[in-house]
Amino acid sequence: MKTVKIGIIQTSCTENIELNVKNTLEYILKSIEKGAQIICLPEMYRTLYFCQTQDYEAFKTAETIPGPSTNIFSEIAKKHEVVIIAPLFEKRADGLYHNTIAVIDADGSIIDIYRKMHIPHDPGFEEKFYFAPGDLGFKAIKTKYATIGTLICWDQWYPEAARITTMKGAQILFYPTAIGWDSKEPDNVKPAQLDAWKTIQRSHSIANGCFVCAVNRIGTEQDLHFWGNSFVSNTLGEVIFSTDHTTQSANVVEINLDEIDDTRTHWPFFRDRRTDFYQDLSKRWLD
Amino acid sequence: MKTVKIGIIQTSCTENIELNVKNTLEYILKSIEKGAQIICLPEMYRTLYFCQTQDYEAFKTAETIPGPSTNIFSEIAKKHEVVIIAPLFEKRADGLYHNTIAVIDADGSIIDIYRKMHIPHDPGFEEKFYFAPGDLGFKAIKTKYATIGTLICWDQWYPEAARITTMKGAQILFYPTAIGWDSKEPDNVKPAQLDAWKTIQRSHSIANGCFVCAVNRIGTEQDLHFWGNSFVSNTLGEVIFSTDHTTQSANVVEINLDEIDDTRTHWPFFRDRRTDFYQDLSKRWLD
Repeated sequence: MKTVKIGIIQTSCTENIELNVKNTLEYILKSIEKGAQIICLPEMYRTLYFCQTQDYEAFKTAETIPGPSTNIFSEIAKKHEVVIIAPLFEKRADGLYHNTIAVIDADGSIIDIYRKMHIPHDPGFEEKFYFAPGDLGFKAIKTKYATIGTLICWDQWYPEAARITTMKGAQILFYPTAIGWDSKEPDNVKPAQLDAWKTIQRSHSIANGCFVCAVNRIGTEQDLHFWGNSFVSNTLGEVIFSTDHTTQSANVVEINLDEIDDTRTHWPFFRDRRTDFYQDLSKRWLD
Repeated sequence: MKTVKIGIIQTSCTENIELNVKNTLEYILKSIEKGAQIICLPEMYRTLYFCQTQDYEAFKTAETIPGPSTNIFSEIAKKHEVVIIAPLFEKRADGLYHNTIAVIDADGSIIDIYRKMHIPHDPGFEEKFYFAPGDLGFKAIKTKYATIGTLICWDQWYPEAARITTMKGAQILFYPTAIGWDSKEPDNVKPAQLDAWKTIQRSHSIANGCFVCAVNRIGTEQDLHFWGNSFVSNTLGEVIFSTDHTTQSANVVEINLDEIDDTRTHWPFFRDRRTDFYQDLSKRWLD
């Protein structure tokens, strides 16, 4: 039986980056104490979700890779032999920024990065202003404990992203996220929004016979109340772990990677894909 | 407001084709009395689910298009100005068969056919023995009341099928189905199977901002207990109607097609698809 222990770090942020990093490190260490092997942080773990407005000042919080965050995480990863999935605001070049994940392997090395491919832009989530769309495509990254897929927030609404990432070998899809309820929207739409967010990600587990781990922030920042609810779904799409929407936490969930082969053998969706008729997926629209 | 009334015909079958057709017609007429405009039958509505075994005799129940079923349905469709989605066992040529939907428009004409693209083959569902894979690709069919997508059973596990069908203009995805619990499997897996089936189809509503209507049979046939649970999900993936797993029924659900534009404007997933990075979807596997 090939088991892996996933550490799910659900945190809130303040205006103080140093404090946010310190807070995150505390929760990382808590998860390590509980036996975590692959630890995932929420999207842009170290700042407020500045994309609510278009603010040139926010670019100053971006960092390089390697840089401050990866230096800290590399040290912890090496010391404790853990994998850390670190979602950053990446400064790639002067005036060029991405919403990026750096994956630190259990030896402390940065083994790969993923740049968010699908960039939202709506009132309160003005990300196209900040982030150039990823140019590295979809990734499966072979870490010490599992081959992981790294996707970010808005990517979670795209079956294409989950599919390609799985076909590259990912056993667990990680979705660091910053999603919340907008206080300007009526209360009655909130359950449907949360449920749709869980359902679409559970569907990636089902379609691809893989594990999904969504890690969201909590806390109220201006108009947004980030809804937490970090969760793990198994290869059948069942939610095997879920948090609440108000508590910072470092939870550890053990999963059995052998379930992937078992599920896919009984639900052999990959066997029957009509690859000869999928070329239209590369079009914008077909009507 | 552009509303459409969908008729959902959930039936069981016997060994007697004539009786099954008569039974189906009664439920179709019931749905028409309730105001149905687009009426959907379960997969292969007029026979037992013969694919549990490989039986050469079953080929004799196949029919041509046009043929017995479409003749009957064309007459009803024209008389009552309704659209009928008729899932058939199609004999296309000597020794060549498909699992097919004939769509009859409200003037009684067969406006298009869809041939099941994804063909399962597992113990109890030995479909590759009977059905050549569809060669017509994915379809959106413009009927009098809405542009509909026609997909069949196993297709429902494939996000690719739902995506392409929607991009061709489909407002409602119809999934005539014959799915059930296998009596040889333990009881404890049954809720997960049913829930996965609902979840993956609801996810097509979410990913594509469209309506989904799944129409399943009921009844116990040899080892299979068909689980009914025909349902409709709205553009947010909410289940707005669902049946049980024991009752034959002709239900009518009114939907508002204007919700499609509204949902997609607020969740603009089609805007942000990374069509420049989806070509790998035409591969079998990428590892």
